[in-house]
Amino acid sequence: MTARHDMTASYETISTRLNGNVLSATFNAPPINLIGPEVVRDLVGLLEELSHPAAARVVVFDSADPDFFFSHVDLAKVPEYTAEAAKAGGPGDASLGMLFRKLSQLPAVTIAKLRGRARGAGSEFLLACDMRFGSRENAVLGQPEVGIGAPPGAGAIQHLTRLLGRGRALEAVLTAADFDAELAERYGWINRAVPDAELDAFVAGIAGRIGNFPRDALIAAKSAINALSLPTPADVRADAAVFQHLVRGERAQRRTAELFKQGFQTRGRTECELGDVLGDLTAGD
Amino acid sequence: MTARHDMTASYETISTRLNGNVLSATFNAPPINLIGPEVVRDLVGLLEELSHPAAARVVVFDSADPDFFFSHVDLAKVPEYTAEAAKAGGPGDASLGMLFRKLSQLPAVTIAKLRGRARGAGSEFLLACDMRFGSRENAVLGQPEVGIGAPPGAGAIQHLTRLLGRGRALEAVLTAADFDAELAERYGWINRAVPDAELDAFVAGIAGRIGNFPRDALIAAKSAINALSLPTPADVRADAAVFQHLVRGERAQRRTAELFKQGFQTRGRTECELGDVLGDLTAGD
Amino acid sequence: MTARHDMTASYETISTRLNGNVLSATFNAPPINLIGPEVVRDLVGLLEELSHPAAARVVVFDSADPDFFFSHVDLAKVPEYTAEAAKAGGPGDASLGMLFRKLSQLPAVTIAKLRGRARGAGSEFLLACDMRFGSRENAVLGQPEVGIGAPPGAGAIQHLTRLLGRGRALEAVLTAADFDAELAERYGWINRAVPDAELDAFVAGIAGRIGNFPRDALIAAKSAINALSLPTPADVRADAAVFQHLVRGERAQRRTAELFKQGFQTRGRTECELGDVLGDLTAGD
Repeated sequence: MTARHDMTASYETISTRLNGNVLSATFNAPPINLIGPEVVRDLVGLLEELSHPAAARVVVFDSADPDFFFSHVDLAKVPEYTAEAAKAGGPGDASLGMLFRKLSQLPAVTIAKLRGRARGAGSEFLLACDMRFGSRENAVLGQPEVGIGAPPGAGAIQHLTRLLGRGRALEAVLTAADFDAELAERYGWINRAVPDAELDAFVAGIAGRIGNFPRDALIAAKSAINALSLPTPADVRADAAVFQHLVRGERAQRRTAELFKQGFQTRGRTECELGDVLGDLTAGD
Repeated sequence: MTARHDMTASYETISTRLNGNVLSATFNAPPINLIGPEVVRDLVGLLEELSHPAAARVVVFDSADPDFFFSHVDLAKVPEYTAEAAKAGGPGDASLGMLFRKLSQLPAVTIAKLRGRARGAGSEFLLACDMRFGSRENAVLGQPEVGIGAPPGAGAIQHLTRLLGRGRALEAVLTAADFDAELAERYGWINRAVPDAELDAFVAGIAGRIGNFPRDALIAAKSAINALSLPTPADVRADAAVFQHLVRGERAQRRTAELFKQGFQTRGRTECELGDVLGDLTAGD
Repeated sequence: MTARHDMTASYETISTRLNGNVLSATFNAPPINLIGPEVVRDLVGLLEELSHPAAARVVVFDSADPDFFFSHVDLAKVPEYTAEAAKAGGPGDASLGMLFRKLSQLPAVTIAKLRGRARGAGSEFLLACDMRFGSRENAVLGQPEVGIGAPPGAGAIQHLTRLLGRGRALEAVLTAADFDAELAERYGWINRAVPDAELDAFVAGIAGRIGNFPRDALIAAKSAINALSLPTPADVRADAAVFQHLVRGERAQRRTAELFKQGFQTRGRTECELGDVLGDLTAGD
């Protein structure tokens, strides 16, 4: 048994519990788990902890909100959360995309357990994890960005193109539609859709199993797979720059304003059915 | 609403109808929608129109022939259709592969709606589109080239290897077999197999939805995905050169001659069941 | 009909039968088809034969043991089988990974017909073949290496990342779990899972079909697909080096010793249920 780094930090929006070699990290940022400055600040802190060579061998991420794993970024606070993300890296790394790339490179093995919605950067968080398992009954993934007026900027372009192939990645990104668990599994967006009643035990089984394997073998295997499959920093930065430019543009601003009139970023139909809502949005097209 | 470029050209083998931001383009080249000089000439013209920044935001391609989307190239007129394809590009671009690569790079989003057969360059046309949806009951895809005596030369090697992976791409290309919609979906050759009765509404829904999204976001997202997923011009040209060399070779000529004796390029069993026919062909092996 | 190279060699652990343009090669290395020095020696010889331009056009690999296609490498004889593998190549090629890369580059089309278990380098042998078809009822694939204490070293990192994508490749490699035929098909590890009663006729049909196609077209198509999809020699060598280093390390040695106490490398529960056994192994973690 190797020495273990004690997890001592506590976070406003992430509760953590260590069980053997497996850390559970549960996001809890009411009302709808928006990725805003607080969540990004806490993620930066947690990833820093997990970079420690003696940190937990496996991390399982889930959400305290059964309807929203992560809704998406807080579009009223793009500069603020970007400034928090910048604290994780060096110059040029002021983006969620680079923060998520750091997540992908952790020595710990990361597993996302998805119930509810994960859209935009929420989906991109999952894509940066090592594995993703979704509730067959209620997991929803989507990249709504193009429907708002910008391409995804924090990894979806890179990961979806590699995982789904050109045709299905174009469909996912250009339609900005919601994908249920079954279709997300079929396209390769998640590893598997698992019946909700079995999901906790399924993920705990995988996490516990990996947690018992030698750390140096886990790290060597993950590094070799990462070397073949992670996007380059240049591509991640380029995607972030295009997103940040277009999301501030006139069309996206008009469409975002219309969405806010309809209840965007509050708990209600617009967030629950964002895929459908975007299909009907007429402002600024 | 941006200014819209009026579609003024008319084509012998393609009928077009503009509905809002969505252009429908229907191939109609009796008797079996061969890709010959006329179809290529019309495609060159249509792609030229669609390169205009104010052209339709979305294009849906289908066929007036329920049995043949595109049968394949006209093997009696390789020099003639190649000469037409050359008009789309610069020196070194005299190939369907480079024409199809231009299709992939259009600012417009391209969606193929497949009923009937799409073999050889017909399949490669679909692979160059941004998305492909097939009728579950009657879509058929195939790359018969190797069964004739040459590798595919207009994009299938490139796209199928990326979409299906090495093992399934080798199966598709080396068996020269027909793939039905269900298997094509499972392998990732098409985005989805959709029940025939739902296919029109399904594709119209996606096209209309994308047509309402901001054009600059669509273009930025598509360009970023293309940068990761399109073959290089050098690879496209190399595949074209090998095809053009081997298809003129003695073995391919003997096999092509035998196919013509059996009704190749006419409406009948040889074209309808080309996958099976190739498996039984004994000439020139 | 081209002149055919007569297969004259005979092998201790591989029986071969030529039928037209199709060679059948059946592995038979009791008690459990371990990949040890004898099997590697015979593979080196057979690949040398198949490199001949007039050798069989298609090779179908299967196993005489219905329970084990290949169990995995003989962990008691790593230096010995590595020395045999070295005879296939030049300096720096002393690895199964480089031998399997040579297999992928044969002019012959290679098809693996999988019944029973193919774990570790057994799975990597299949991944190096051009196509893989498995019995729906009893095929099992797995990369147990990480559970023993080293990453896979003979191609799985390279092929699984390309075929399955980052998330599913990480799952397969980091869990070291057994995959049944249905899941292996869903993830793209094998081309298809075929009902056991149909598997022989299915594979014979594909092999016979390809065997009748012109050889130069087959070789040109396979070469073009290989150029896009095979790992680089540098990556193959790097993976082999990490495996060979870690498998000799203290943790892997302790875990291997514990496995041998439990009946590793003999016919029994430990080999039959290796995925489960690894999940319960506590030594050296």
